[in-house]
Amino acid sequence: MAGPRGVYPARLRARRLKSRTAGIRQRVPQTTRRMNLSINAIVWGENIHEQTNAVVREIYPEGMHNTIAAALNSDPGINATTATLQEPEHGLSEARLAAADVLLWWGHKDHGAVDDAIVERVAKRVWEGMGLIVLHSGHFSKVFKRLMGTPCALKWREAGERERVWVVNPRHPIAEGLGENFVIENEEMYGEQFSVPEPLETVFISWFAGGEVFRSGLTWRRGAGNIFYFRPGHETYPTYHDATVHKVLRNAVKWAYNPQGTYKAIHDAPNVPVEKALEPIVERGPRLHKAGEAGYR
Amino acid sequence: MAGPRGVYPARLRARRLKSRTAGIRQRVPQTTRRMNLSINAIVWGENIHEQTNAVVREIYPEGMHNTIAAALNSDPGINATTATLQEPEHGLSEARLAAADVLLWWGHKDHGAVDDAIVERVAKRVWEGMGLIVLHSGHFSKVFKRLMGTPCALKWREAGERERVWVVNPRHPIAEGLGENFVIENEEMYGEQFSVPEPLETVFISWFAGGEVFRSGLTWRRGAGNIFYFRPGHETYPTYHDATVHKVLRNAVKWAYNPQGTYKAIHDAPNVPVEKALEPIVERGPRLHKAGEAGYR
Amino acid sequence: MAGPRGVYPARLRARRLKSRTAGIRQRVPQTTRRMNLSINAIVWGENIHEQTNAVVREIYPEGMHNTIAAALNSDPGINATTATLQEPEHGLSEARLAAADVLLWWGHKDHGAVDDAIVERVAKRVWEGMGLIVLHSGHFSKVFKRLMGTPCALKWREAGERERVWVVNPRHPIAEGLGENFVIENEEMYGEQFSVPEPLETVFISWFAGGEVFRSGLTWRRGAGNIFYFRPGHETYPTYHDATVHKVLRNAVKWAYNPQGTYKAIHDAPNVPVEKALEPIVERGPRLHKAGEAGYR
Amino acid sequence: MAGPRGVYPARLRARRLKSRTAGIRQRVPQTTRRMNLSINAIVWGENIHEQTNAVVREIYPEGMHNTIAAALNSDPGINATTATLQEPEHGLSEARLAAADVLLWWGHKDHGAVDDAIVERVAKRVWEGMGLIVLHSGHFSKVFKRLMGTPCALKWREAGERERVWVVNPRHPIAEGLGENFVIENEEMYGEQFSVPEPLETVFISWFAGGEVFRSGLTWRRGAGNIFYFRPGHETYPTYHDATVHKVLRNAVKWAYNPQGTYKAIHDAPNVPVEKALEPIVERGPRLHKAGEAGYR
Repeated sequence: MAGPRGVYPARLRARRLKSRTAGIRQRVPQTTRRMNLSINAIVWGENIHEQTNAVVREIYPEGMHNTIAAALNSDPGINATTATLQEPEHGLSEARLAAADVLLWWGHKDHGAVDDAIVERVAKRVWEGMGLIVLHSGHFSKVFKRLMGTPCALKWREAGERERVWVVNPRHPIAEGLGENFVIENEEMYGEQFSVPEPLETVFISWFAGGEVFRSGLTWRRGAGNIFYFRPGHETYPTYHDATVHKVLRNAVKWAYNPQGTYKAIHDAPNVPVEKALEPIVERGPRLHKAGEAGYR
Repeated sequence: MAGPRGVYPARLRARRLKSRTAGIRQRVPQTTRRMNLSINAIVWGENIHEQTNAVVREIYPEGMHNTIAAALNSDPGINATTATLQEPEHGLSEARLAAADVLLWWGHKDHGAVDDAIVERVAKRVWEGMGLIVLHSGHFSKVFKRLMGTPCALKWREAGERERVWVVNPRHPIAEGLGENFVIENEEMYGEQFSVPEPLETVFISWFAGGEVFRSGLTWRRGAGNIFYFRPGHETYPTYHDATVHKVLRNAVKWAYNPQGTYKAIHDAPNVPVEKALEPIVERGPRLHKAGEAGYR
Repeated sequence: MAGPRGVYPARLRARRLKSRTAGIRQRVPQTTRRMNLSINAIVWGENIHEQTNAVVREIYPEGMHNTIAAALNSDPGINATTATLQEPEHGLSEARLAAADVLLWWGHKDHGAVDDAIVERVAKRVWEGMGLIVLHSGHFSKVFKRLMGTPCALKWREAGERERVWVVNPRHPIAEGLGENFVIENEEMYGEQFSVPEPLETVFISWFAGGEVFRSGLTWRRGAGNIFYFRPGHETYPTYHDATVHKVLRNAVKWAYNPQGTYKAIHDAPNVPVEKALEPIVERGPRLHKAGEAGYR
Repeated sequence: MAGPRGVYPARLRARRLKSRTAGIRQRVPQTTRRMNLSINAIVWGENIHEQTNAVVREIYPEGMHNTIAAALNSDPGINATTATLQEPEHGLSEARLAAADVLLWWGHKDHGAVDDAIVERVAKRVWEGMGLIVLHSGHFSKVFKRLMGTPCALKWREAGERERVWVVNPRHPIAEGLGENFVIENEEMYGEQFSVPEPLETVFISWFAGGEVFRSGLTWRRGAGNIFYFRPGHETYPTYHDATVHKVLRNAVKWAYNPQGTYKAIHDAPNVPVEKALEPIVERGPRLHKAGEAGYR
């Protein structure tokens, strides 16, 4: 399931993106078509409760990550694979992340077990243009907190209560094809105050039977990477078997995808020598750095 | 030292008095009056180049932090003190930060020397409502990068060229009393692309003689804390002796100050038990957590 | 009630703002103090249903505008007067608006009766720095739609149902002193989608018993003017007698107030002649306008 | 004229076909194929200076609108046509606007000649999802001011000076394929303060030889419509013959295009009767409206 499908050097990927516009899709064999023309998404799953909790295992016998990946793969424009906490490098090697267009993140029980080096690696790829979709309890993941710069806390209650998700930004790409609201009959409540930075756009707000509200769909941009947080998805309920949730996830993958390829320059802090200034200037006054010396970090 | 500084209306004064806990403050009785009526600002200086570089020492014989603090203290509504890298805990003990309303941060040569625990302490205080003003090369400080969640990189050139700072948000509190632009005759160039999150508001944009532009005044909110980045301030130029720069810094301190006191709840992720739901609900379906159990982090 | 209190030429107002910081408040007689040291707020009321509907008249025998003004005047920092649709120029003469710091707007039954010239006058004052607080059914007022540039529509239901207003931006100035939520036991429901531009900040989100949510507190800036929309306030319920609602209104007036005075330059589109360019440039190529000619509008 | 333009994947094509209603389109059978597969863009030109000013006529003998349309049509994914002030209904009939995906607007000499009813028609289509790209002096067009709700003023100078446009949001769709900056050797200067609402994102900032800066690429969303303002394009210079400008315009059309079709519900303010509430509620207290009665506007 989580084999190395979709690992391509940047040059090949650029070519494949270009070839998309040539309308050749229908003519190529199934597997080639997918690899060459699809958005590469990795669904990262913590994969603990599926192994240790009977309720969760019964709902998601294949693991939540595989259920989510299957929902994404129902769209021929998406090529979703999976990665889990237990794999070497949590399944997120440099090569695999380099080939990923969008990463989805579900974690809950053991955020602390995620290696800080992998967290940093993911953050760098987001800045370079990889999309990131953070799911439900992933609000407390190291990856999300790293990119938000805030506590990302909220209030919660496990009561299987009704959640009504309202679309507040109609015709936003992530809300494509949805009605004005949709219901998840049994969900964990998440309540405000959700301590995240003011978003670029608010897409969804949830109503809970117990009296709370929550901003359930929020977008941000960090570097060249698009980030979407989507609230639903508690592991003791069948949320990821819901067709509307599937639609949101597919929409979100397409929205988060930045087709312009990896933006390595995001990491640079280049010096522009005086003699290469765009407009002719004469150096004046003292300076700290010698010619050609790198800046301090 | 401070006479009666009646800058705050009675109700603000009352609020401040109430919001203050017993801390380092009460041990310095001679300044109690002043502290209670003013915004407590800490000017943090790295204080390296002032000690090691003859040019910088000549411009700032007292250190940049003291020059900046003096500029702030010319306003009776601000009570500015200083802290430096070399002090124990970099001068930012728990007690001192707890009593601070606004922190200003200038660092350049040795961002890496700042203790990660102090960085985390500062971030927490910002989330709780302490204002933060990041100056010039502080864009690469651990504190700023921690709160932005992005690389915070930019391009640069040390040529003492002319910088023209344009106010693009007239009548913003930080631009109070300024004309439509002001000039700093000799400055280091910082050029876009400045890899920070889209700000809440853009206040200043700089024009450089060599052909670059830069978003020189940007605001964000993180938790209950207001954050302002202000570009000018290279150590080999007398920028912090400039009266207009002083005005911006004083405006920024007043803007960043959140008079509502420390917001400790920002760190909590409370469970709301079913029986305490605001609207009566009946628990349905399975759950992970036992009653009263804390959530995972 | 709606007499010409607080009408001062700009120069006097500037002086009064300055004198605020001199700590003279306590020493001057009550009425003078208020006029000289307070934020001048005008509460504009449509004043129709109070005259024509027995239910509304019983709840607001003095008119909603007077009830709101009284709530504001309980704060010595605010000097609130009223204006109504029925007065000449709807009570919003040039002179009165010129002296106003903040305008609150409640209308419902006859938005169309508001003179377009007065709408334009109000918009200009907002751009110049007058704060604007739009209340409840004012979402469909000409003034609000003029400044938003969108339909400002929403869904609604009159059922006296429970509204729970959640603070999603704790320690925002407008939420000062509030708990994490407050309840209005009987209110009209307003539901998303609320077609307004993405706000600067979302302060409140409401939960309704019937299943809807609404962004009940939103901020924007237009020119130098701060704008706040606050949802509650249907005329058949005693919402404006609620102490928490009073607190929000007072907070909002203080937040919306821009102490920097009238910004007339917002209306200008000045030509900068070549010979007055900040940097020496030489004119090149053809041009449309003769020297000194105004631009097209 | 148009061959098979297979730029859209099958699913997008299907969506487009479905979302199309019978309109002017079906009456032009020879272009049906093309229309169904491309983004329909209308380039609106004021078309005055091209007729009355020798300099402008020499640079744009076909009119600026035709030059721009040709640049867009070089992309097989765009089907650009033109409309001008002089045509009946300024070339913007209900049917034509209904079929338009994106409208580009260039005007300067006679903004006042645009019929207010057409302005309102355009605004409505933007709210329904039509993209809008406002060019250069279009900042003062009625259409743009209507949608911004602000004066949209700026400072200006006709000196054919150098403009350097910096990309401050790398990998934004509108900046696709651009370097970190591009130069327009001769342009009119536009300088801050540009009195528009804080944008969703800032894409470009310009540097001018004479010392000014300007936010030259800004995005907003109004209803379901994406709006982009792009600064360059003074009629006495050959800006719209520039290949990089062409690229920006094509990128902007693709970015502004909302593939989800016309969103008519944006104009509604529906009542939700008590008996149709999503959650069962009981009506309490008095109400203004009788059952089934429309709300006030």
